[in-house]
Amino acid sequence: MHTAILIIQCKDSKGIVAAVSQFLYENNGNILAIDQYIDEELGDFFMRAEWELDSFDIPKDHILDVFGRQVGERFEMDYSLFFNFPKPRMALFVSKLSHCLFDILSRYYSGQFDVEIPLVISNHADLEPIVKAFGIPFYHLPINKSNKASQEEKQIQLLRENNIDFIVLARYMQILSADFIKNYPNQIINIHHSFLPAFVGAKPYHAAYKRGVKIIGATAHYVTEELDAGPIIEQEVARVRHHNTVEELVQIGQDVEKVVLSKAIKYHLVQKIKVVGNRTIIFT
Amino acid sequence: MHTAILIIQCKDSKGIVAAVSQFLYENNGNILAIDQYIDEELGDFFMRAEWELDSFDIPKDHILDVFGRQVGERFEMDYSLFFNFPKPRMALFVSKLSHCLFDILSRYYSGQFDVEIPLVISNHADLEPIVKAFGIPFYHLPINKSNKASQEEKQIQLLRENNIDFIVLARYMQILSADFIKNYPNQIINIHHSFLPAFVGAKPYHAAYKRGVKIIGATAHYVTEELDAGPIIEQEVARVRHHNTVEELVQIGQDVEKVVLSKAIKYHLVQKIKVVGNRTIIFT
Amino acid sequence: MHTAILIIQCKDSKGIVAAVSQFLYENNGNILAIDQYIDEELGDFFMRAEWELDSFDIPKDHILDVFGRQVGERFEMDYSLFFNFPKPRMALFVSKLSHCLFDILSRYYSGQFDVEIPLVISNHADLEPIVKAFGIPFYHLPINKSNKASQEEKQIQLLRENNIDFIVLARYMQILSADFIKNYPNQIINIHHSFLPAFVGAKPYHAAYKRGVKIIGATAHYVTEELDAGPIIEQEVARVRHHNTVEELVQIGQDVEKVVLSKAIKYHLVQKIKVVGNRTIIFT
Amino acid sequence: MHTAILIIQCKDSKGIVAAVSQFLYENNGNILAIDQYIDEELGDFFMRAEWELDSFDIPKDHILDVFGRQVGERFEMDYSLFFNFPKPRMALFVSKLSHCLFDILSRYYSGQFDVEIPLVISNHADLEPIVKAFGIPFYHLPINKSNKASQEEKQIQLLRENNIDFIVLARYMQILSADFIKNYPNQIINIHHSFLPAFVGAKPYHAAYKRGVKIIGATAHYVTEELDAGPIIEQEVARVRHHNTVEELVQIGQDVEKVVLSKAIKYHLVQKIKVVGNRTIIFT
Repeated sequence: MHTAILIIQCKDSKGIVAAVSQFLYENNGNILAIDQYIDEELGDFFMRAEWELDSFDIPKDHILDVFGRQVGERFEMDYSLFFNFPKPRMALFVSKLSHCLFDILSRYYSGQFDVEIPLVISNHADLEPIVKAFGIPFYHLPINKSNKASQEEKQIQLLRENNIDFIVLARYMQILSADFIKNYPNQIINIHHSFLPAFVGAKPYHAAYKRGVKIIGATAHYVTEELDAGPIIEQEVARVRHHNTVEELVQIGQDVEKVVLSKAIKYHLVQKIKVVGNRTIIFT
Repeated sequence: MHTAILIIQCKDSKGIVAAVSQFLYENNGNILAIDQYIDEELGDFFMRAEWELDSFDIPKDHILDVFGRQVGERFEMDYSLFFNFPKPRMALFVSKLSHCLFDILSRYYSGQFDVEIPLVISNHADLEPIVKAFGIPFYHLPINKSNKASQEEKQIQLLRENNIDFIVLARYMQILSADFIKNYPNQIINIHHSFLPAFVGAKPYHAAYKRGVKIIGATAHYVTEELDAGPIIEQEVARVRHHNTVEELVQIGQDVEKVVLSKAIKYHLVQKIKVVGNRTIIFT
Repeated sequence: MHTAILIIQCKDSKGIVAAVSQFLYENNGNILAIDQYIDEELGDFFMRAEWELDSFDIPKDHILDVFGRQVGERFEMDYSLFFNFPKPRMALFVSKLSHCLFDILSRYYSGQFDVEIPLVISNHADLEPIVKAFGIPFYHLPINKSNKASQEEKQIQLLRENNIDFIVLARYMQILSADFIKNYPNQIINIHHSFLPAFVGAKPYHAAYKRGVKIIGATAHYVTEELDAGPIIEQEVARVRHHNTVEELVQIGQDVEKVVLSKAIKYHLVQKIKVVGNRTIIFT
Repeated sequence: MHTAILIIQCKDSKGIVAAVSQFLYENNGNILAIDQYIDEELGDFFMRAEWELDSFDIPKDHILDVFGRQVGERFEMDYSLFFNFPKPRMALFVSKLSHCLFDILSRYYSGQFDVEIPLVISNHADLEPIVKAFGIPFYHLPINKSNKASQEEKQIQLLRENNIDFIVLARYMQILSADFIKNYPNQIINIHHSFLPAFVGAKPYHAAYKRGVKIIGATAHYVTEELDAGPIIEQEVARVRHHNTVEELVQIGQDVEKVVLSKAIKYHLVQKIKVVGNRTIIFT
């Protein structure tokens, strides 16, 4: 089923829900899902509405204009319109670890992710056979201190040539430059292997072991310039005990990482995420 | 703040959200929360809306009528109206175990539960001192095979005299008769000490031990005639290991029971539950 | 590192730990892990000890005899000896669903499972390409009402030819016959897609939806003649809400299933499971 | 049943388990629980053994000496001996929040905590009625910038007069001085209302809200001079969503806090905790 998805942000006031739902009703929109949220601290209203496109009276390409004139301008809304087709185009960045890659490809294979994966980029060649077994082009772009800028240029070029919509860092062990990140604002999802904001940076499982925590976690977040500080999309945890070695924390953690990352990708794919400052709204 | 809460069920069709939100907007209702749910299997639409009452144009006592004429009848809605005042009146039924009772009274004491507790009824006298320490009347109504019907009559009389809105069975170890239950449809909350539908009936921790489960749980549900089969409100679980004895399961489980029961009471208090057949919608 | 693993069951009495640990010490055994459990209901003592084999004074093939004479007979023990080499040989049985298969193969690929997978058997051909991409032979043995016995014979033959130690039913949608099961007592691991003993049998997610549970789960267990009633190895759960459709329960549940099944396989691989009646001890 | 509990730390080497278990066996000790742990990083061996005291051949007051001569010295052990009687004496420090206090008193009342509570100390008078209802003396010692040292002296005096073994800070909103803490090394348990090491210090729920985390937590730890940095005993978490206000985080968090704190108290009461550097071993 073809659907349209509207995501709205504006100052909270009376009549917003009425105006939006009236707009959809008058134009013969069959609402499939609708969710609102009022941020009392900001005084802002947020809404996500999804409806069937086929029977809608306004042609796809005019919806944004008409909505803006009839509703958006009146409430001084910030609004965005998405469609659930064509499939979003996702690039995967990996290094050597395979658990997140396998989990993503497994969901891609079974149809759980309605997405195109035009390419995988890696700074190591290790995972090439896996990627190729799925019929996906694999680009090996090794990175060292001297070639980072030029390699990122090649990455950007590949992403553009492939019309990539968003990027998933599936345990990609390189830090992207601020310049790179600017090209994909809130379109780069990273999995950090700790329960952020605990254990920012490298070797979080070692740090967790040293601190003696009883629970470890993983955090999927959008990448911003500040390391591991971007808006959190999803988190999950697992219980550990004193006898678990760092290596065991790594293994226990990998099960958490892959599930958290895949949940975040799913939310992103179906346009359920709205970034507000450094927080995310995850619509129902 | 005084609020009104509307809960709606009707066949799903276009225009419902528009009609309800327009009704609230036109009458100057400041929406505080709104949540919808479409049950695709039933083809039914459900909605809960809460708004400020003080500034609302329609007087409290006329809202139901006006809404019915302007909106409810048009969509052949089943609709109910609630107010967050006066405080609901809750009766507690207990036996000998104190953990749920303490948890409820603790929240009552701290103001987390906006409720009146006019009385506690028990078939044992053990918990009387606790209840009295909170200044709550305690009625000791022992139950045996021969006096059950007459004692239930006394219970009903006490509940009526105290204008009780709903009843919480806080590990009350008696089965209520069908006649009793009929007086309080979807207004009796029980905590069952297992993860229903596993281990219905007596001694679920013994049954869980015997079956060798690795996780135990607790279930808060509305009481219906069929034992432990009513609509589930909330569930939670805890991990156990092979070395945990039945007595340890009981202790681990009690921590789950009290939290689950108190969550269910909270949902009920703020009118976030809609029973549909044998399932519950828990609105956001 | 080559290790030996001893698993013991006997009537509890004084001196067992002393006797076993003295035996290991006198023969120069470097203990790597030791765990005990006293089942108070049975009055039985259980122990798992793992030690380095290379420096041990008793040759590998004589350990069982010497231990029996020096310790086992004295306490009338039931004892078993295992080695962590050569790698156990695991057969996978699958049908059409790929999520558990991918999860297992992913761990096999990354070395998290120290196991051989000589073959995969399926009653459908769908997953053949995945299996072959990992270089593992795939046998398509379709099953219908009339050919079940003969196909099971072929399965048994394949398992024997490949010296299979244990079998994992990775969402294999067929019920094995009692005759088949007898060949592999406590050596067939199944993943059931519910929180057993709730929702035994077919379509548990449908049953969970209908019952309106707030939490769903998955259970890995050894297969016995009685359906879904064998000793539970591991369980895990996930929270669901009223708005989740059966299809969503299936997707949420698959994430639980694959992690639970893989944990159970890991416990089995490292000989951490002792079946006692219909319960399992999972040693630390 | 009267029991003795031995907790051991020494360099790992062959023969330790044999020596300790032989010592218990020869002196007619009926082992109730035994648990070991080898810290591979430190190269240290840890053990906790609990056995029946009544039938033990060595008189209570000589056990430590005899064990030291026969076993402890040989392995250069650090060892401690405890008995499960008389009941440990616990002081509670509180401020205004009642949820942890109620939870502890509830377990004390029901016999789940085998402990004496000779007094409660608070810097506010609010909780006095609750404490008195349980028949426990309540000392109101208000603290301000100028009187902190003198009030702590009074606290210490009260603790000594009452032969207090350990202190529980049940949401006590004051920071204890280094001098105070030195008197009770690893004998002061605090509950911090975040998932440490995330959100150290004041107002962690505000910080969690601001960071937009999807999971909040609580941490029970031993108090050391560095704020919120002592050895972690237990942690637990709860899921939150974007629409949860700070006030809701506080309420959700309180349910986690009270359960985590009570678990930590239980571990401490039954001598299951061994502090190693800044980590804790929690024996089975």
